[in-house]
Amino acid sequence: MTPNQLSARQAARAIADRKLTAVELIEASLARIDKREPEIQAWEHLDRELVLKEARARDKETPRGPLHGVPVGVKDIIDTADMPTQHGSPIYKGHRPATDAACVALVRRAGGIILGKTVTTEFASSPPARTRNPLNPAHTPGGSSSGSAAAVADFQVPIGFGTQTAGSVIRPAAFCGCVGFKPTYGSYAVSGMKLLAHSLDTLGTITRSVDDALLMWEVLQAGPAVLPEMPARPRIGLCYTPFWGQAEQAAADAFQTAGRKLAAAGFDLDIVELPSWFETLKEHHRVIAEYESARNTAFECAPERFSLHSPTMQQARERGWRLTPAQYLAAREAQARGQQELGEIMTSFAALMMPSAPGEAPKGLQSTGDPVFNRLSSLLHVPAIGLPVSAGPAGLPVGVQFVGARGADLALLGLAARLEDSLA
Amino acid sequence: MTPNQLSARQAARAIADRKLTAVELIEASLARIDKREPEIQAWEHLDRELVLKEARARDKETPRGPLHGVPVGVKDIIDTADMPTQHGSPIYKGHRPATDAACVALVRRAGGIILGKTVTTEFASSPPARTRNPLNPAHTPGGSSSGSAAAVADFQVPIGFGTQTAGSVIRPAAFCGCVGFKPTYGSYAVSGMKLLAHSLDTLGTITRSVDDALLMWEVLQAGPAVLPEMPARPRIGLCYTPFWGQAEQAAADAFQTAGRKLAAAGFDLDIVELPSWFETLKEHHRVIAEYESARNTAFECAPERFSLHSPTMQQARERGWRLTPAQYLAAREAQARGQQELGEIMTSFAALMMPSAPGEAPKGLQSTGDPVFNRLSSLLHVPAIGLPVSAGPAGLPVGVQFVGARGADLALLGLAARLEDSLA
Repeated sequence: MTPNQLSARQAARAIADRKLTAVELIEASLARIDKREPEIQAWEHLDRELVLKEARARDKETPRGPLHGVPVGVKDIIDTADMPTQHGSPIYKGHRPATDAACVALVRRAGGIILGKTVTTEFASSPPARTRNPLNPAHTPGGSSSGSAAAVADFQVPIGFGTQTAGSVIRPAAFCGCVGFKPTYGSYAVSGMKLLAHSLDTLGTITRSVDDALLMWEVLQAGPAVLPEMPARPRIGLCYTPFWGQAEQAAADAFQTAGRKLAAAGFDLDIVELPSWFETLKEHHRVIAEYESARNTAFECAPERFSLHSPTMQQARERGWRLTPAQYLAAREAQARGQQELGEIMTSFAALMMPSAPGEAPKGLQSTGDPVFNRLSSLLHVPAIGLPVSAGPAGLPVGVQFVGARGADLALLGLAARLEDSLA
Repeated sequence: MTPNQLSARQAARAIADRKLTAVELIEASLARIDKREPEIQAWEHLDRELVLKEARARDKETPRGPLHGVPVGVKDIIDTADMPTQHGSPIYKGHRPATDAACVALVRRAGGIILGKTVTTEFASSPPARTRNPLNPAHTPGGSSSGSAAAVADFQVPIGFGTQTAGSVIRPAAFCGCVGFKPTYGSYAVSGMKLLAHSLDTLGTITRSVDDALLMWEVLQAGPAVLPEMPARPRIGLCYTPFWGQAEQAAADAFQTAGRKLAAAGFDLDIVELPSWFETLKEHHRVIAEYESARNTAFECAPERFSLHSPTMQQARERGWRLTPAQYLAAREAQARGQQELGEIMTSFAALMMPSAPGEAPKGLQSTGDPVFNRLSSLLHVPAIGLPVSAGPAGLPVGVQFVGARGADLALLGLAARLEDSLA
């Protein structure tokens, strides 16, 4: 096992125990990247000198915190003071922020090393980026946190930051066979993360284990996680969602496999029916995302910059500008109502199980896949964690996600550790 | 009447009707500032050449939107691409962002002119700034949106942007005799506004009339306001809040005067009792504000920068870092519960009336006053609008605020126009 294959927790422990140096770990990461980057293209910016200098500095210190010496990949819509931040857009070519985003500074505070900036789609939206799926480069890694998912899955880094407005953490994590964790909206400090749809945007993590997602929770809270007690037989709601018709056979199989394994592991499973009007949440999500994204990018949409958007993005922004305040307010009202109704449902379940995506990662790089199963947790602000379950027809991973109650991120992470064991 | 005394709506109309030029309006603003700035000190940055150039450009165009040619003051925690943004902190001395914040770009999109950056307290928090109350320079204008409130009250600009985490819009507006409007959390696009406590921070406006607050709503939504129908006798809840003991005689008098005038104007008034546990919301607000602000400023709190904070701010940040995730999560749970319980109360009222502040602006610049009456709306995400009512013992204005239901910003603005007439 090379150091880059360690989990973040294992690597930090080895460094703290002086069985591994930060330099060795970073060198292993860089060696893996050197080998794979020409094909996978997960990185927007990498500065070998800088990160090795950081690693040497970490090696001379007593561990700062639980991530000491461990490399992290940062989606390129998150500000870094020592690296460019380009938002996947020519508008920001060469842009160098003055400060680190909160999550970046919190990683450094815990001793972590920002390895580089990972590829994002244009403004974390749908126009696909160049990154390939490391498990099969003919397929998309998903998006918009494309580079983070690919780099983590490919053992280039143990942790990548992603952000989710529709499905940009859970979907790419699923396509790459990783653990995607999107906490409750507002759980993580978001200063310095590019806000597009401020009522939806959520910072999340992509890791190779639930334990590393929990470790990042502690890093981002700068404090200890106290996991709530779990019932002996947690009740999981099997949630086919109003969008089940879009699930491919592979997603249906993964759902069934997961159900079977969880039943065998002693979980209490029950079908849960969402209110039928939840089908309309897809459209309400679109209205909020497009309306807010247009207004939040009023600077980028000014006449002198608008043409630097891709045609697809121009159309999305134009749709956003055309939406009226009345349409937006109606969507926000539906969002609030949905939050309340889902909250009532969640009082009966430890988590709801849903597909992470319609199937395995689609072939080609023309699309990053469909966030149809991800909008619900984004819109309703509830936490979601995606776990790999089985393989699809092309041999690529297919997962399920577990959605928790709003605010109950730690309960979900504690539960997910047990789910992960049961699904393994 | 000089042009700088016009409301934003009046000025925009006069410019559109070619009865006034943007240059004349800007020159009137600058003349007023030249006369008053040495004493009032509302401005952190002013570039006369730049704004006159902007005004000349506006005068050559067909009106872009409803704010064409009208100057706006921008609190200096909001990014501007053509002016420094210093957050009231030496850490950001000379800092020049690459982009405009969303609200700044939306003003420009509507034809408005960013006149300059207004003084903020350090990171929009409690350490006071140098700005004086234009109505009596021996008194504070309130904070943290000190410069915006002073500049608007003093007829230097018709509109100032403020931000509120505890009471930073409503309080300074009240101390300066202005209309402070803090919408529902998340109503206005916040990209490019410095996030401190991301679960509380709300962009707001300070104006001299409710109508200008409504105009800014339209500018920031980039679309028309459709006011909902109002009952003939709107029911106002007289809300003494759990903090009534901190109301000075002047605040009690203003509250009583307002009640009398509103009763005479045909409003239906009723005392409303908040749940007694709402008293604890003050402490929950403190926990969320200090916890989140520490983590959102992890970059500023890094060892190489921490000493650039004022001693008061250092202590606040240290308190924030010491708070545990468990304490924070408990406060967030109380916030959610409070939102739900207030929501139920609000179904019976058009608005709740509360003091805007404990009394008139305190003498001296040692403190910007107490946000004790403002934390409730900030924490519970409900909209609030503050209106002047009477005068205190030093002859300074004393106001009341009206708190609406979450999301019902337009209903509150519509109601406030009628309240403003009745209180005049």
